[in-house]
Amino acid sequence: MENARLAQQIRFIVEVDRLKDVFRQTFVIGSRRRENDAEHSWHLCLMVLVLAEHANTPDVDALRVLKMLLIHDIVEIDAGDTFAYDTARMADQHEREALAADRLFGLLPADQTAEFRALWDEFEARSTPEAKFAAAMDRFQPMLLNCLTEGAAWRIHGVTRDRVLARNAHIVDGATEVWTYAARMIEQAVAAGHLAK
Amino acid sequence: MENARLAQQIRFIVEVDRLKDVFRQTFVIGSRRRENDAEHSWHLCLMVLVLAEHANTPDVDALRVLKMLLIHDIVEIDAGDTFAYDTARMADQHEREALAADRLFGLLPADQTAEFRALWDEFEARSTPEAKFAAAMDRFQPMLLNCLTEGAAWRIHGVTRDRVLARNAHIVDGATEVWTYAARMIEQAVAAGHLAK
Repeated sequence: MENARLAQQIRFIVEVDRLKDVFRQTFVIGSRRRENDAEHSWHLCLMVLVLAEHANTPDVDALRVLKMLLIHDIVEIDAGDTFAYDTARMADQHEREALAADRLFGLLPADQTAEFRALWDEFEARSTPEAKFAAAMDRFQPMLLNCLTEGAAWRIHGVTRDRVLARNAHIVDGATEVWTYAARMIEQAVAAGHLAK
Repeated sequence: MENARLAQQIRFIVEVDRLKDVFRQTFVIGSRRRENDAEHSWHLCLMVLVLAEHANTPDVDALRVLKMLLIHDIVEIDAGDTFAYDTARMADQHEREALAADRLFGLLPADQTAEFRALWDEFEARSTPEAKFAAAMDRFQPMLLNCLTEGAAWRIHGVTRDRVLARNAHIVDGATEVWTYAARMIEQAVAAGHLAK
């Protein structure tokens, strides 16, 4: 006899395989191909293991941070990736992603639909210490890849220093020391000609 | 003044970006390209969130399972991916990977080198409930992708039903119900002609 709950969960696991085919604007350092959302999510989680000690809240719940980061981009399977500096598409981004959350998390058994939706809402609201730290990782990682690829994504899209500073300054809410490091990286990128003034 | 510990940690985070360029034998379901280790690792972690209730040990420590799975394949940056049915290369696999663990985890500050190495050793030894469940996810996920891609990787390598059963049977040590599901999937793959008898 089939375990219906397990079968439903596995259908969700198969569906989210599509996150590997959602490509971002940032480039992988070695091969200089565009990064996808699944490997981006892995990288953020790995960063949490290494950098959790730098969270502004010292007793940040690492498990909840990881859960948020593992699921935070799943909505992009339906809603697509919205580039962090594409203000036109950002206008209806939350609305598109909320619809995607309804459909995708809705594939799970009801208790898990509620759990995953609550985690996604928490990440989006960015008001708990865990969500602030998760969001800091989500901003810092593409900056790091941009800096290590001579500003490839910034140059393609004509992004300037002021916009990078404005877009990423909330890293300071989750991890002050990481923001100090990131702000120095930005100035180095400007000095090297990888980011426009 | 630079925070030297943070700078060292970030060098590790940059180095492990290379995991996105280590490709496996399994295929992504949608685009039918080969999967890389970073997105594979994300998929396993996501599976832990969804399937932890099916672990044989009901109070399995999900955070430790996630930590093991986030780092378990990092050694393949140096050691390369060893196909699960390549018995020749599997002979010295652990030796190659242990050397890689020394170098890669050794990039971290000493306390984190020790922590990451202990997690990797625990995963490899497969004796704790957390390691058994982590290993079950690591075996079940490629089986799932193989079944959903008409046995693509199995057919390329001429893998037979008996070898798939032998290689994956230890899923039962971590999650009995998942193994029941997987064993039925294998029979369906044989019946559909996607896996040789």
